[in-house]
Amino acid sequence: MAKTIIFGHKNPDTDAICSAIGYADLKQKLGMDAEPVRLGAVSKETQYALDYFEVKAPALMEEVEPGTDVILVDHNEFQQSVANIKDARITEVVDHHRISNFETSEPLYFRAEPVGCTATILNKMYKENGIAVPKQIAGLLLSAIISDSLLLKSPTCTQEDVDAAHELAEIAGVDLHTYGLEMLKAGADLGDKSISELLTMDAKEFSMGGAKVEIAQVNAVDTEQIYALQTEIEAEIANLIKEKELDLFLFVVTDILNNDSEVLAVGNGKSKVEAAFNVDLDHRSRALLKGVVSRKKQIVTALTEAYEK
Amino acid sequence: MAKTIIFGHKNPDTDAICSAIGYADLKQKLGMDAEPVRLGAVSKETQYALDYFEVKAPALMEEVEPGTDVILVDHNEFQQSVANIKDARITEVVDHHRISNFETSEPLYFRAEPVGCTATILNKMYKENGIAVPKQIAGLLLSAIISDSLLLKSPTCTQEDVDAAHELAEIAGVDLHTYGLEMLKAGADLGDKSISELLTMDAKEFSMGGAKVEIAQVNAVDTEQIYALQTEIEAEIANLIKEKELDLFLFVVTDILNNDSEVLAVGNGKSKVEAAFNVDLDHRSRALLKGVVSRKKQIVTALTEAYEK
Repeated sequence: MAKTIIFGHKNPDTDAICSAIGYADLKQKLGMDAEPVRLGAVSKETQYALDYFEVKAPALMEEVEPGTDVILVDHNEFQQSVANIKDARITEVVDHHRISNFETSEPLYFRAEPVGCTATILNKMYKENGIAVPKQIAGLLLSAIISDSLLLKSPTCTQEDVDAAHELAEIAGVDLHTYGLEMLKAGADLGDKSISELLTMDAKEFSMGGAKVEIAQVNAVDTEQIYALQTEIEAEIANLIKEKELDLFLFVVTDILNNDSEVLAVGNGKSKVEAAFNVDLDHRSRALLKGVVSRKKQIVTALTEAYEK
Repeated sequence: MAKTIIFGHKNPDTDAICSAIGYADLKQKLGMDAEPVRLGAVSKETQYALDYFEVKAPALMEEVEPGTDVILVDHNEFQQSVANIKDARITEVVDHHRISNFETSEPLYFRAEPVGCTATILNKMYKENGIAVPKQIAGLLLSAIISDSLLLKSPTCTQEDVDAAHELAEIAGVDLHTYGLEMLKAGADLGDKSISELLTMDAKEFSMGGAKVEIAQVNAVDTEQIYALQTEIEAEIANLIKEKELDLFLFVVTDILNNDSEVLAVGNGKSKVEAAFNVDLDHRSRALLKGVVSRKKQIVTALTEAYEK
């Protein structure tokens, strides 16, 4: 049997990497020759989790071998996947995002659930298959939930995520809140990041009513510290807009202690940001979005609506 | 709580209607205010099943009320759904087809599995929720499996479908083969159908490499009896091609006793049919496809590949 490759989205976050590792473990136990890979650099947050639970990062994959069987976790939109995804045969998807720009020519196993994290679905799949979650994998799945839910505070976080997080913390043998805050803080340490890294480390591109929109998000303990570099940030965003022919680039700096986001909008679509969030961008093209922490649930949905109006 | 409307695809077959009824029953038992509807006429085959198990056909729905919560069963491609599907809020999909031309702005519950029939997945969902399948619903789900698998003979039929069919026949209190053949024969009785009905009763439109392809399938006991009307059939297909701006119309007459299909190809895409199935269309633009009974697994996949080459 040929090997099946499992991966999360480009610019991988903790869920993208840990769910690939977790699902590969489950699939191996079910008899599949499965290997997790990653489509980009490991973030500090993810590295903290991998180090804590003593798991090696999956190998980096640039392109998929044509004809390979692949399983996508934590994404389905092709522009967020490996560049030559159309050359692969997608046999499964396990995800918790909206569905868009995804198609296959054959039936497949596609499981999307409106929960806060892919790892929550995987925790359920271990149970459905009567297989115990190993301690290290439990730690990684827990880390994914903490990351996606900003320690269970994001509006995307459902009761299922909360329950899964507590179960997994127990198996992993950690205190959910102590471990979670340390992991988030490790990820919010942006001191050594270049401007370019800040704009790409967790960036996703979306198609909205025909427009090309890129949304980059970083977690921070002090948002002002990042915006001290606004001039340089804007110059780099201008390059990205030109290079990728974007209509809008939204840079979202999320304050993990206060659970707000300070956003910077660049491009022709600035008015869409104002309409979507009912705010005025200030003279620096910035706005504070109170209580907004979720790109998926609070930003993409509102912006898509503004673009499709 | 507002009502959720559940429906299968346009030109409904037995799975589209019976899975809508079945899933509405399960959802009601789980506390949802759910109502099954249908997007088109009830076929003779489906009517046979409804009459046998004494269930009323769901109401016909022409358009969905904007803003309504809807659940799609047995389809996901928007061109196969209600015309104004984009005005509805899709909360769930349960399906067994390829995924294409489907998108949402919000996460949802999407469950597709590569099995032969939606009803097979529903049988599993009853079990997962610890709810017994009622006798009448078991009869309808069984009918859907028999219909989609041509009495377990189609290559789309998996072991899961076979197992589900036997379980459901037991609950429904019928002999699988005796009941199944009677139901299929009721559906293959085309004596009273107009040409237009033959071409629309089970027709689906597909987008293949930019081309618009419509594939209509009818089951028959005697394929020659249908092709006695070929001149009239071709004239009507020519109208459909003009009206819908199709690149290809493929009319598939499936012999339910011999498990072959005699196809008629009309439109610019005739060469794609020859390439896809490695056959020559004869002077009547027809070809016998030996062992081909499944539109999904044997026709759509091969044609899509020919179009995308």
